[in-house]
Amino acid sequence: MDGKRRPVRRVAGHRRLAPNGYDQREDRRVRLATISVDGTDVCAAYLADGRLLNLSQVAASMQALIEGGPAALEAARKMLAEAEEGAHDDAVVGGDAPLQAPIPNPRKNVFCVGRNYAEHIAEGERAQNLKIGVTEHPVFFTKPPTSVVAPGGDVLMFPEVSTSVDYEVELTVVIGTAGRNISKADAMKHVFGYTILNDITARDIQRRHGGQYFKGKGLDGSCPIGPAIVTADEIANPHALSIGLSVNGETRQDGNTRDMIFDIPTLIASLSEGLTLEPGDMIATGTPSGVGYAMDPPRFLKDGDTVVCDISGIGTLSNTVRSV
Amino acid sequence: MDGKRRPVRRVAGHRRLAPNGYDQREDRRVRLATISVDGTDVCAAYLADGRLLNLSQVAASMQALIEGGPAALEAARKMLAEAEEGAHDDAVVGGDAPLQAPIPNPRKNVFCVGRNYAEHIAEGERAQNLKIGVTEHPVFFTKPPTSVVAPGGDVLMFPEVSTSVDYEVELTVVIGTAGRNISKADAMKHVFGYTILNDITARDIQRRHGGQYFKGKGLDGSCPIGPAIVTADEIANPHALSIGLSVNGETRQDGNTRDMIFDIPTLIASLSEGLTLEPGDMIATGTPSGVGYAMDPPRFLKDGDTVVCDISGIGTLSNTVRSV
Repeated sequence: MDGKRRPVRRVAGHRRLAPNGYDQREDRRVRLATISVDGTDVCAAYLADGRLLNLSQVAASMQALIEGGPAALEAARKMLAEAEEGAHDDAVVGGDAPLQAPIPNPRKNVFCVGRNYAEHIAEGERAQNLKIGVTEHPVFFTKPPTSVVAPGGDVLMFPEVSTSVDYEVELTVVIGTAGRNISKADAMKHVFGYTILNDITARDIQRRHGGQYFKGKGLDGSCPIGPAIVTADEIANPHALSIGLSVNGETRQDGNTRDMIFDIPTLIASLSEGLTLEPGDMIATGTPSGVGYAMDPPRFLKDGDTVVCDISGIGTLSNTVRSV
Repeated sequence: MDGKRRPVRRVAGHRRLAPNGYDQREDRRVRLATISVDGTDVCAAYLADGRLLNLSQVAASMQALIEGGPAALEAARKMLAEAEEGAHDDAVVGGDAPLQAPIPNPRKNVFCVGRNYAEHIAEGERAQNLKIGVTEHPVFFTKPPTSVVAPGGDVLMFPEVSTSVDYEVELTVVIGTAGRNISKADAMKHVFGYTILNDITARDIQRRHGGQYFKGKGLDGSCPIGPAIVTADEIANPHALSIGLSVNGETRQDGNTRDMIFDIPTLIASLSEGLTLEPGDMIATGTPSGVGYAMDPPRFLKDGDTVVCDISGIGTLSNTVRSV
């Protein structure tokens, strides 16, 4: 993973506050993961040398850290800075600690957005011989907590349920501060950070339930998330990230988040109209072109495939497809 | 509420086990609610005289009681039987204790089913001048935990977000035992009980997000649930229940669950294909005809309206519409 190797920059840095109130000094960047320590999931932060600092004395879980707001993150940063100076040795674990999804047991379904990149809409309409075009409002649906998979974990395929399992790499927003009817101008203040989500989709199932996406997007093992949550202050511009996906080393998706039709403030504003967003909520922001079903002929995932998602500045999310 | 007044039947009863393994002896029927006691939500059961027995010494919450399986429900029944004989006086509270939704903080979105009664499909297609008919597979979507409202609580209306807020009374299944790829034959073994859900829907929002129902069905205050969970053994046939809804005393919906297109075993089997159902999961099974948008002219809910849902054998769920 990219973040394990990059040293923490020690420039003094100009201290400034990001729109969300989090301290944005460059030398205080935090990359957070959930790891298993002695069988228990704990929140951890990457040290400069790629090892991980167990943050359980700061927060009981990633969810608790997010709910703790800027004060909790400040405490995590303080502990991280002290560990970089040699303290908290007993809380440092190897960089090979087993990763869980950053929020392993989300308290509600993951919010997702469909049809948010023009070339992905175009490839789908070519494949299905449809003409709908860009919708006036974002297309929202959800994936249940039972679909969540850890980095390195298995994407499940159920051959008796679906014969057309597909991938979709997506930049995913993690909400830090609750809000309803959030304005576009205020939206970024509600963002805690970013992660990667692979919106695995059973295409046959997606279409057969009266056109509602939920069932085809909701199967067990269809929602790899990770490898880490990068705090919002680390991403200077979330609308300028390269976003890609490969299957067994072959590049399939290769886009940039600048091509989102509805940008993150618009998605947050639209979704939160009359609907309260809460700390730890996740919003997957749609996928660029290159999905398997739109290839000619279609190329769906098969048992044993390795699917790797990459988003610049966040890292790499790798999973293996396993037929069950 | 119906259940408050019906005395517990003291006939010795033939002891038999329901398909789900729960003891079905008639004198041991249980009607469960979540109530607030000193500001804390606790699980409770109705006594014959309409008062409520705090079950917190049996289970910390309704979710915990359900996860406890037949053993936990047996312990609740034992305590209830002892309380009927005069014991546990300190755990008895008045029947006017504030009700919460039976599962006040569901751990995931509520599963819902659309287009499951032929006359409701027909009225919708008349109103929209469409012809789709019955889908080959059930239409699944979800409502988030933030939409849940207690019995007696306010259904929220956001005039700047939606001008066409509608109602839908639905029999709702509560899952007791986890399972994936559940067969129709085994489906009823996974049912803990039944409750009532009003699937409040912003019709304009339901249609504008690329046809995905989630946003229009997911607003805050759009999911009243209750008043109680009636254990599965109490409902001899969930497909023979009268199901109705009134607005300010005027009957709007008046159907019977026998008219479901996809019955409960079919819904559980279809939803659980490749998707694990967990204890406490709820599945709202669709609404009969009589919704406001299909009337000519349409009649949507307005500030101050009282909406009352009734399902025979379960009770009455009453809520007031409040514009915010």
